[in-house]
Amino acid sequence: MFENLAGFFDWLDERRSANSYEVSVVGLDELDGWHTDPQTGNVAHASGRFFSVEGIEVHTDHREVASWTQPIIMQPEIGILGILVKEFDGVPHCLMQAKMEPGNINLVQLSPTVQATRSNYTRVHQGNPVPYLEHFLSPRSGRVVFDSLQSEQGSWFLNKRNRNMIIEADGDVTVRDDFCWLSVDQLQQLVHVENLVNMDSRTVLSGMPFLAPGTADEGARHTTEELLSWFTEAKSRYTLDRRVIRLSDVKNWIRSADAVSHESERFFRVVGISTRASNREVGSWSQPMFAPASRGVVAFVAKPFGPDGVLHLLVHARTEPGTGDVVEMSPTVACCPENYDDFPRDLRPRYLDYVLAASAGRVLVDVVHSEEGGRFYHAENRYQVVLADDDFPTEVPEDYTWMTVDQLTGFVRYGNHVNVGARSLLTCLAR
Amino acid sequence: MFENLAGFFDWLDERRSANSYEVSVVGLDELDGWHTDPQTGNVAHASGRFFSVEGIEVHTDHREVASWTQPIIMQPEIGILGILVKEFDGVPHCLMQAKMEPGNINLVQLSPTVQATRSNYTRVHQGNPVPYLEHFLSPRSGRVVFDSLQSEQGSWFLNKRNRNMIIEADGDVTVRDDFCWLSVDQLQQLVHVENLVNMDSRTVLSGMPFLAPGTADEGARHTTEELLSWFTEAKSRYTLDRRVIRLSDVKNWIRSADAVSHESERFFRVVGISTRASNREVGSWSQPMFAPASRGVVAFVAKPFGPDGVLHLLVHARTEPGTGDVVEMSPTVACCPENYDDFPRDLRPRYLDYVLAASAGRVLVDVVHSEEGGRFYHAENRYQVVLADDDFPTEVPEDYTWMTVDQLTGFVRYGNHVNVGARSLLTCLAR
Repeated sequence: MFENLAGFFDWLDERRSANSYEVSVVGLDELDGWHTDPQTGNVAHASGRFFSVEGIEVHTDHREVASWTQPIIMQPEIGILGILVKEFDGVPHCLMQAKMEPGNINLVQLSPTVQATRSNYTRVHQGNPVPYLEHFLSPRSGRVVFDSLQSEQGSWFLNKRNRNMIIEADGDVTVRDDFCWLSVDQLQQLVHVENLVNMDSRTVLSGMPFLAPGTADEGARHTTEELLSWFTEAKSRYTLDRRVIRLSDVKNWIRSADAVSHESERFFRVVGISTRASNREVGSWSQPMFAPASRGVVAFVAKPFGPDGVLHLLVHARTEPGTGDVVEMSPTVACCPENYDDFPRDLRPRYLDYVLAASAGRVLVDVVHSEEGGRFYHAENRYQVVLADDDFPTEVPEDYTWMTVDQLTGFVRYGNHVNVGARSLLTCLAR
Repeated sequence: MFENLAGFFDWLDERRSANSYEVSVVGLDELDGWHTDPQTGNVAHASGRFFSVEGIEVHTDHREVASWTQPIIMQPEIGILGILVKEFDGVPHCLMQAKMEPGNINLVQLSPTVQATRSNYTRVHQGNPVPYLEHFLSPRSGRVVFDSLQSEQGSWFLNKRNRNMIIEADGDVTVRDDFCWLSVDQLQQLVHVENLVNMDSRTVLSGMPFLAPGTADEGARHTTEELLSWFTEAKSRYTLDRRVIRLSDVKNWIRSADAVSHESERFFRVVGISTRASNREVGSWSQPMFAPASRGVVAFVAKPFGPDGVLHLLVHARTEPGTGDVVEMSPTVACCPENYDDFPRDLRPRYLDYVLAASAGRVLVDVVHSEEGGRFYHAENRYQVVLADDDFPTEVPEDYTWMTVDQLTGFVRYGNHVNVGARSLLTCLAR
């Protein structure tokens, strides 16, 4: 435990220097254990496990363009992202890990206690066992605080879900190297530090502070029934038809010996990464990763409503190619602005220009975070919550709605309602 | 409105005799507008809409057998099942419809205000418009009481969902022929009448009586978090892999000119139905239907727990071939006992023999209901809630758990948690 954050940062520096890492971008054709199928162009591991990169053809009436093809990551397994919590002197603490992920721009970030793919914890790669995993596998001791399946990036994964768990330990817990206890208050501060609390931590933490049931609709513009109806309406109204195709059949994307990239050099590249680490389950490995072409913006527009001025978020029922069920509750804006540079004004993502133009005084949250460093290379998004000015229209298009922070948090509990960007933003909002 | 149920039954008799119907079983090859594809054996409508009968290959570690193939209904569209409610003198009433469905053993049953496939309400069949539909389509007036996507029979449909809606009307409502207002109390009694309240009504009514939030865990053996964790655990632990195949590739099923049936004559048959009605959107039509070989049992074992003796239901995380997400919260028992006649005792569905042997004094609910008469021909299930005796084990296998009626009802609200059999039973339980 740390009396103050200075102590934590000293510890983090110490952990960073205790281990050595080398990460380099290599050609897709040079990856050890990964092969490109000559028939399909798909990139997969020789074992048939972990994940694969294939193609997807998307048809929808709910995006800027009606149909397209793109590379996508297939990883049907459900992994575990778990945080162990324990009260010390009545203060809840989370057991966090200083963990290197090759895609992180600064390599080491704070990850959950356990961050394990199914391949990981069934030990397909023959590495060391995953520490603390026993707290998350059944039968387990401890008290369940949160346990639900949550989606990951729908723009890059097809239907990918991980099991997000918070378990309160009921006995002594030995703190191993690279692990530390941080209070929930300390974490609330650390989520405002650039590229520190990793995506897996942010999504699990969004399930942390459940309110007393029954208070969620207080001061809210819409009841929970109305919000569920809005969500059901969007799922019924819009269509999302997809077909998995060969990576070699993806149009306008070019496969070289090194990478798969779009003709325009926009969106992202599929690259190879070679990694060497002194403290990972296996000492060295290589793998494909998605490397976005530019930094994204993930933002809520927020506005107080009612006599008590309860803050509401403008939530978008958003469709992405990999979304499990047509739409998920998503931030007001989520995109890489550069991808839309040459779009006519009326086809640019709605509210994007509003968020980009927000004056500093209106920005309640503003922090750059990394996406999952195990799949995405140097993938950064600027997470923002922007206070709407008085002229901002209260009436919004049918696939947007206003909900309170408590209401959106309530939907996280049930899984598969709130997308990963919105969950990250919830974690960054003081609650 | 009816002062008493006698008045209702008089009205129902009158509606039954006001219209004339003829339903006959015909050969699949004789269906007007429906064709069997010579390549695949699939049975589909010439328009490509409504639904089709295809094959499915199932692999799972969570059923009596590890893999099998069978015919299955493909109907990806989301239909609307909607009940309009309105208070009269402070008493909430539901607008119900006396509706003929060709599969119903007694033809006319009570259906929701609106029961419309997407083909129906977009008027693919060029029939009359669906009455009262405007109350359920956006933009609408009235107050949303319940609006969520709910699964249908996973043993016969692949991922089929309908939108279940309850809308409180905010103005006068003209009552058309074949429609009537029934109070919620009257419906609570009528659900105990054999083959009267149809499946579509039962599933919508299961979303009716939401409790004040916050009371659901009172007196409960497990918290809602624990129940969600149990559900997440089951989704993560078990596997359900499926592949849509040609109907002609389904093994051990025989296609004759008349029907598709299993070699053993068990399970169900795919038959043709020809219908003539004086008051339907179209006067006559024909279609394929699934006709089960025998009557099923759908039952909860129930047990009071705690000092206040709060009734708990033994809920099964059940996997069916068409289940959307590996498992759904299901009754303790759901099967056609005859299908298991020659199974060894240890492979018979768990708790089936317990339910079948229950003495009359322990049966809290006991009523035969029909499944959806638009897809299933003479498909009856005996719905039961059986009180466990004192010897019944409190500890249950990992894919079962005890939850209160209020807790299970709470999960209905979020959609895709509670299966159709369990929702029907909830509607039959006094709440």
